[in-house]
Amino acid sequence: MNGDQQAEQVFSYQHLFSFTKNVFLAMGCSDEHATTATTTLLSADVRGIDSHGVARLSGYVRLWEAKRINAKPDIKIIHESPSTAVVDGDSGLGLVVAPFAMQVAINKAKQAGTGWVSVQNSNHFGIAGYHAMMALQHDMIGMALTNASALVAPTFSTERMLGTNPIAVAVPAGSEPPFVADMATTTAANGKLEILQRKNLEAPVGWIQDAAGNSTTDAHALKNKGALLPLGSDKEHGSHKGYALGSIVDIFSAVLSGANYGPWVPPFPAYVPMPENQPGKGLGHFLGAMRIDAFRTADAFKKDMDNWIQRFRSAKTIDGYEKVLIPGDPERLFEEQRMKEGIPLLGTVAEDLAKVGQKFNLSL
Amino acid sequence: MNGDQQAEQVFSYQHLFSFTKNVFLAMGCSDEHATTATTTLLSADVRGIDSHGVARLSGYVRLWEAKRINAKPDIKIIHESPSTAVVDGDSGLGLVVAPFAMQVAINKAKQAGTGWVSVQNSNHFGIAGYHAMMALQHDMIGMALTNASALVAPTFSTERMLGTNPIAVAVPAGSEPPFVADMATTTAANGKLEILQRKNLEAPVGWIQDAAGNSTTDAHALKNKGALLPLGSDKEHGSHKGYALGSIVDIFSAVLSGANYGPWVPPFPAYVPMPENQPGKGLGHFLGAMRIDAFRTADAFKKDMDNWIQRFRSAKTIDGYEKVLIPGDPERLFEEQRMKEGIPLLGTVAEDLAKVGQKFNLSL
Repeated sequence: MNGDQQAEQVFSYQHLFSFTKNVFLAMGCSDEHATTATTTLLSADVRGIDSHGVARLSGYVRLWEAKRINAKPDIKIIHESPSTAVVDGDSGLGLVVAPFAMQVAINKAKQAGTGWVSVQNSNHFGIAGYHAMMALQHDMIGMALTNASALVAPTFSTERMLGTNPIAVAVPAGSEPPFVADMATTTAANGKLEILQRKNLEAPVGWIQDAAGNSTTDAHALKNKGALLPLGSDKEHGSHKGYALGSIVDIFSAVLSGANYGPWVPPFPAYVPMPENQPGKGLGHFLGAMRIDAFRTADAFKKDMDNWIQRFRSAKTIDGYEKVLIPGDPERLFEEQRMKEGIPLLGTVAEDLAKVGQKFNLSL
Repeated sequence: MNGDQQAEQVFSYQHLFSFTKNVFLAMGCSDEHATTATTTLLSADVRGIDSHGVARLSGYVRLWEAKRINAKPDIKIIHESPSTAVVDGDSGLGLVVAPFAMQVAINKAKQAGTGWVSVQNSNHFGIAGYHAMMALQHDMIGMALTNASALVAPTFSTERMLGTNPIAVAVPAGSEPPFVADMATTTAANGKLEILQRKNLEAPVGWIQDAAGNSTTDAHALKNKGALLPLGSDKEHGSHKGYALGSIVDIFSAVLSGANYGPWVPPFPAYVPMPENQPGKGLGHFLGAMRIDAFRTADAFKKDMDNWIQRFRSAKTIDGYEKVLIPGDPERLFEEQRMKEGIPLLGTVAEDLAKVGQKFNLSL
């Protein structure tokens, strides 16, 4: 589905759900946490963001084996105001910690109009869009940010200082489907680069730089101290803006919560040593919810939002393009298709999952 | 200062302040509003963003002459919750309406931890960074977004649907100066294009497209139905992300407040007809303030923020670059220099100001 030529195996959502939940249960998660973690993780596969779904399950298991993930976390609020909170994730799965924090944001928004929760001591939380979308059913706008281990060089730098630090914003509409933006603050997400690596293809100019900071098309440059480039690619095309956006995500997620930031964010691969002299705890997220009717009636807002979506979707297109897309359109089409027809996994991903299962006597 | 070869005249801040304030007073603004509008407008000249300062004064006057700006607005809150408000700008100068709304956000944050204000029925508000920075003295993070008249084509479109819709975020630090990001959500701000137009130079590939949606280096393409490109320039380099960011700014500023959005935003040049069938009132802004100690103590935050800034500023550089910049560094250097040495204006800008003065019997 993602352009790979490799053999694929198709699994139903229910099958992958049951398998994945059993893995989390075997790690020692409670039934509630295993359900939440599975729902969060699989939302990536369902929405076509293959790099962030079950393909990462073995990575989470290895972090647990390395005792960097706590399967029985005591997730709690450690500081709060009427519209804010800081949540300590107790080294839990970000897949569980972030939905807890988003629920706190939603509860705050019910009372105070908006809710904003910064999270410390967490781990990778799957796709940002899932957490932002939790707000939609409450007629709220949802936001989700997270930092991640450093792969991105600021403008003018050779050093990796920021993660791909995504921003997700979900906005409810009326008769139209919601607006759901979910984007890395880099020119290209790391998942897209991984696809090129597997196929031994070159990367477009503007995605990455080599160890000296020169533009390169070598998709493997990150293995040799290269770096991903911030959205904008180079100074002339606004890379200082992508760098600033990634920095804002880092500050809101980690400086505001007391998590690790910049080059000190814990790495996802369990074999990579932890950075030295870490200033905070775990990695950080930032979740937000704004109740629409804290601004105007939800009906009036949704009427205008439908009009916004319809006007943009009908904008005149460049020859050769069928229509202008609304953020969230491609992922929604994946969701419709995959819930019906199943989720295709690359052969290597299915093998990797089967090996994870063997650790716990579970068959895929 | 901005690379133009044209003759420049240098004015002291005090001189330009007095002249500009007198123009606003002559338009009928109250003394308080004239002071606020002047402070806001000149913050652009002081910070080196020449396109948004006194160079625009004649444009504001023409909007007032066309009765699109109300010099005596009754700016008020029309909807609120503990952490939110919607402000009606009563067609006032955005230079006055936005600081009012930002003060509401700050007051809300004092009580509820955060404050978020969406604004309808306003006009252009100068530089976004000024409003965001109002939060700093209160140990708060400030945010300011605004929509603007449509110059930007979404990915795959030939139509101008969004303004350059900036995002500003100001974050206090301790011994270090604050982090202040202030960026258009386009690859290049329109002001940069205007400099090339005046000098008859070509634009870099990736800044603009022509009427058919083809990449062009003709800096005058916007006069022939061309469009600015979203941050990212093209799909392969993430223009759908710049388009999504500009859309989020539009939705927060205008769909949440009941202002005009997308192609319906009122134009800045008074001679351009208003778009037909406008769905809302005036243009929209979105202002936010988050009290640091609603998350953790300001001291702990500032200590980490200083560490963040120092670590990024000392990141290894690419050969030929002296250091990695922190967002806000270039504007702060301009401010230090211009408050001491004066503000250089292009000959054409000084002439334009002198003509504005003549309308009101004021000499520059």
